[in-house]
Amino acid sequence: MVDPNTSLGVVETKYYTFAEPPNELPLESGEALGPITLAYETYGALNDQHSNAVLVLHALSGDSHAAGYHEGDRHPGWWDAMIGPGKALNTEKYFVICSNVIGGCKGSTGPSTVNPKTKRPYGLDFPLITIKDMVNAQRHLINHLGIEKLLTVIGGSMGGMQVLQWMISYPNRIRSAIPIATALKHSPQQIAFDEVGRQAILADPNWNNGDYYGHTPPAKGLAVARMVGHITYMSDTSMTEKFGRRVKADQQSFKFSPNFEVEGYLQYRGDNFVKRFDANSYLYITKAIDAFNLLDGTSIQDVFKQQRAKVLVIAFKSDWLYPAYQSQEIVKACKLSHVDATYCEVNSTYGHDAFLLEVEEETHLIKHFLRTASNDREA
Amino acid sequence: MVDPNTSLGVVETKYYTFAEPPNELPLESGEALGPITLAYETYGALNDQHSNAVLVLHALSGDSHAAGYHEGDRHPGWWDAMIGPGKALNTEKYFVICSNVIGGCKGSTGPSTVNPKTKRPYGLDFPLITIKDMVNAQRHLINHLGIEKLLTVIGGSMGGMQVLQWMISYPNRIRSAIPIATALKHSPQQIAFDEVGRQAILADPNWNNGDYYGHTPPAKGLAVARMVGHITYMSDTSMTEKFGRRVKADQQSFKFSPNFEVEGYLQYRGDNFVKRFDANSYLYITKAIDAFNLLDGTSIQDVFKQQRAKVLVIAFKSDWLYPAYQSQEIVKACKLSHVDATYCEVNSTYGHDAFLLEVEEETHLIKHFLRTASNDREA
Repeated sequence: MVDPNTSLGVVETKYYTFAEPPNELPLESGEALGPITLAYETYGALNDQHSNAVLVLHALSGDSHAAGYHEGDRHPGWWDAMIGPGKALNTEKYFVICSNVIGGCKGSTGPSTVNPKTKRPYGLDFPLITIKDMVNAQRHLINHLGIEKLLTVIGGSMGGMQVLQWMISYPNRIRSAIPIATALKHSPQQIAFDEVGRQAILADPNWNNGDYYGHTPPAKGLAVARMVGHITYMSDTSMTEKFGRRVKADQQSFKFSPNFEVEGYLQYRGDNFVKRFDANSYLYITKAIDAFNLLDGTSIQDVFKQQRAKVLVIAFKSDWLYPAYQSQEIVKACKLSHVDATYCEVNSTYGHDAFLLEVEEETHLIKHFLRTASNDREA
Repeated sequence: MVDPNTSLGVVETKYYTFAEPPNELPLESGEALGPITLAYETYGALNDQHSNAVLVLHALSGDSHAAGYHEGDRHPGWWDAMIGPGKALNTEKYFVICSNVIGGCKGSTGPSTVNPKTKRPYGLDFPLITIKDMVNAQRHLINHLGIEKLLTVIGGSMGGMQVLQWMISYPNRIRSAIPIATALKHSPQQIAFDEVGRQAILADPNWNNGDYYGHTPPAKGLAVARMVGHITYMSDTSMTEKFGRRVKADQQSFKFSPNFEVEGYLQYRGDNFVKRFDANSYLYITKAIDAFNLLDGTSIQDVFKQQRAKVLVIAFKSDWLYPAYQSQEIVKACKLSHVDATYCEVNSTYGHDAFLLEVEEETHLIKHFLRTASNDREA
């Protein structure tokens, strides 16, 4: 079933725990958090020059398991189509790293982690975090792995925000950057959709002010949040193609049961999400996304002025959650700072999900771009 | 404050109760409901020929109070900008009627009405209703008012669906029709947004399977449903113009309080809605909207084949909830049946809300159209 020529086969999650004196990491908010653990995976091998490292950055509901299979799993990591032997991020050439963000719930320190001070899960004692904090933590991991300069940083959606933050926070630590389907700042419409998800969670009595670990989690609220998310990840066209107005095969007698396939799909995705994601992480991570604004206190002319990495910006025509004009703004900011930036708008009907689905087009673009970025280094 | 030259001043809601033998109205589902009360308002006077009647049809959260002021109210009816002396629907010329839909909660028979059989509010014993049922009930009111033929039927969004249903159910009872920002059938994306709202209500423990009258209503669930709605009624552009990333003046210490003005606005609109709307009505009416499909069992060539009314179709460029292509399909269906149809796509940034806000443009279009429709009659 799993083709060893293109699949990484079984992979394992590793953990790295660190802190800055006195055992914490300072956060953008002024608070501190620590010690911090990052769950991460690596695929391929670091070369002798330590020059072939690629950092993959995940989106809201992603994790460190980007590719290959966990022992016994039927499904591979979330970007397996893009990472492996011969793929866009070719593990025969590149050393690929992916870590779960802080605030997450897949092994990295987050609100469900036990607070060393209280010996109970943080819950709402977990401090607010930002995209900059996520990236700062990742830099500790990169140091730990002995990498001075990453060949590239790549990611879509919130992953793309981390790419942009890497460009600004650590311009000397990256050779190139690939922000996909993302934005320099979150728009009010994007904030509004996140806020609806948060309010759905907060409205669930099981949320209990964030203190529900060991009890029933706010599953209904989180499912509603995820349902809203899924609508925004697809497009009018892709929903029409996938579902149309087809009714479900199994109709129930309850008046407000799902009648249409699209309703059944949303319920299924919502209910499934609850099994694998923590509601408090959803709150903290969406807050970090909403706070993201690289133009806060600076102009579009200056935002990338320290930047000399080569940049590939990818957007998707039917993506209405992160519309192409937001990617064009990234390109504009690059050009104004004389950064070598290429823009590609992929003609997809998949909406925002396209960054996970348009594998062939992305592979073509990214392979070529990385070849050039690698050659630039060697020249 | 209220200008008597353009305002209707104080208006009153009236009620009409009716049934077909044996005291019920048959519904599209095969069930029956009755007796039925419709809350309605009228503005202006019916002329001697009974030829100047205009039926206004409201959207999801609307009601019969379309214009003028209720005694003591600070705000006028929901389409006051369009209805009154000298306005688009000029009450010096036209007799304007608006009734609350069945299933509603503003005086017409709905799930919060007392079921005559049990002497308790219907709750989920209320039968599922359709747009066709709403229109059938309106026809009883029109008969009661002694109107053989309406000069026009007009409405936006769900109101537009009722316009289209009038064209099909009672082609001989209308001279013209003005469907605004609407569709021949609800798309999977439109269904999906409604389903999220319903799931938010169903997830609220106070919903209690619809049996909450006299107890605490499912306010949090309904507020979340309304928040989702409001995002879809605006556009990316209008949200950016109205809110940008401005933060609220009053910041609270709770980590997940609204920080941004857009978040505060959504909460305000959600909380306010709960005071004036019934959650069960929200469920029933959105189900009716989602079931709407004029192309079910017929083709676009045949859907309007009985139709000889003059039609004005209005859409708005930034309306992504009811995109212009859906209005263009209505026009196409008209043309294929040789119906005299005019299409106008208004260049608005307001999104779906434009049908309530683009008063000047709509007034211009509708005044001219009604003048022609009236002349046709007289010729």
